[in-house]
Amino acid sequence: MVGSRWSATSPGRRRGPELERAILDAALEQLSTVGWNALTMEGVAAGAHTGKAAVYRRWPSKADLVADVLRTGLPPIGAIADHGSIRGDLIRLCVRMRAVMESRAGQALRAVLHECDHAHAGRFHDVIRAGLHEPAHRLIRDLVQRGIERGDVRPDATGPFVADVIPAMMMYGAKVCGSEWTDPDIAEMIDQVMVPLLRA
Amino acid sequence: MVGSRWSATSPGRRRGPELERAILDAALEQLSTVGWNALTMEGVAAGAHTGKAAVYRRWPSKADLVADVLRTGLPPIGAIADHGSIRGDLIRLCVRMRAVMESRAGQALRAVLHECDHAHAGRFHDVIRAGLHEPAHRLIRDLVQRGIERGDVRPDATGPFVADVIPAMMMYGAKVCGSEWTDPDIAEMIDQVMVPLLRA
Repeated sequence: MVGSRWSATSPGRRRGPELERAILDAALEQLSTVGWNALTMEGVAAGAHTGKAAVYRRWPSKADLVADVLRTGLPPIGAIADHGSIRGDLIRLCVRMRAVMESRAGQALRAVLHECDHAHAGRFHDVIRAGLHEPAHRLIRDLVQRGIERGDVRPDATGPFVADVIPAMMMYGAKVCGSEWTDPDIAEMIDQVMVPLLRA
Repeated sequence: MVGSRWSATSPGRRRGPELERAILDAALEQLSTVGWNALTMEGVAAGAHTGKAAVYRRWPSKADLVADVLRTGLPPIGAIADHGSIRGDLIRLCVRMRAVMESRAGQALRAVLHECDHAHAGRFHDVIRAGLHEPAHRLIRDLVQRGIERGDVRPDATGPFVADVIPAMMMYGAKVCGSEWTDPDIAEMIDQVMVPLLRA
């Protein structure tokens, strides 16, 4: 069994989704250990116990592979159960956003952005937008709507800029202030900003 | 006169602040035209009609020179006259922040950040923090205080996260949404977010 995993041409080799998953896992492992610049398609193939051709067949370049690693590796924010108040719902949302950024793929994503050149950075920024900011934006609009129906959010808090405040604050805190968001930071931000902004 | 400007050793040469200003102007001109990677100390010296030694005497490296160019080139946000309402004051502040980012040094700063490597980026991010974000933060706290005294801002809107909202939104809009802030965008953001957040 172990022997059969060392060659893509051996009988009993993994195919399709299973092999793809093994390659993505090996690439995330490489990213997390050696980083973007030192990652090689050969190294990924070796880590996945397959041949280089199996990697290139699916991803024509390192950037394609890494974009897919990050895209598929970021955990979803997921649904937010009703905590009975907009305050509770939004604190939970921020905790989930933090979990996405602190996931293994989220940390690798930040490291890649520090290391890669500008030509690649745009593509990896798209991964953050599609995997974190856009889902967060949609979810906040849903939570605001739920609050309006529950009665603890004012009915006209539906403007698009309102749903940008939390992603903007989370990004600003991490990038400009260089700080991690602790649980008390999140609660304070929600209490100082979102609760007065939204209250009925 | 023109001849005397071509050599740092000629009689009647510029000294001290005047020469320094000419070098900084020439460096901003180089940054704006050829960019960070192609900028050379020789090219800056030629542009300022001085010798390379005059440049190196003041700035030991290109990064030192460029950091100073950006630091001294960013226009100050300046004071905000009382517009009679927190809404008017904050719109004016956002217009000023936009002017800083769209100034020649502001545009050069963004271009440099796109081009330079991570080792230098931290230093240039500090220029943005010290030249834009920190003064904006202090000014917003002052405007909020003025609004509390005037009576159109609630007295407890003094938390530090409140003063982060505008810088965070301006940065988020530019970076994540890739959009410029038009006058109507600024007014909508203030009306949707800051007015409800602050109102008495």
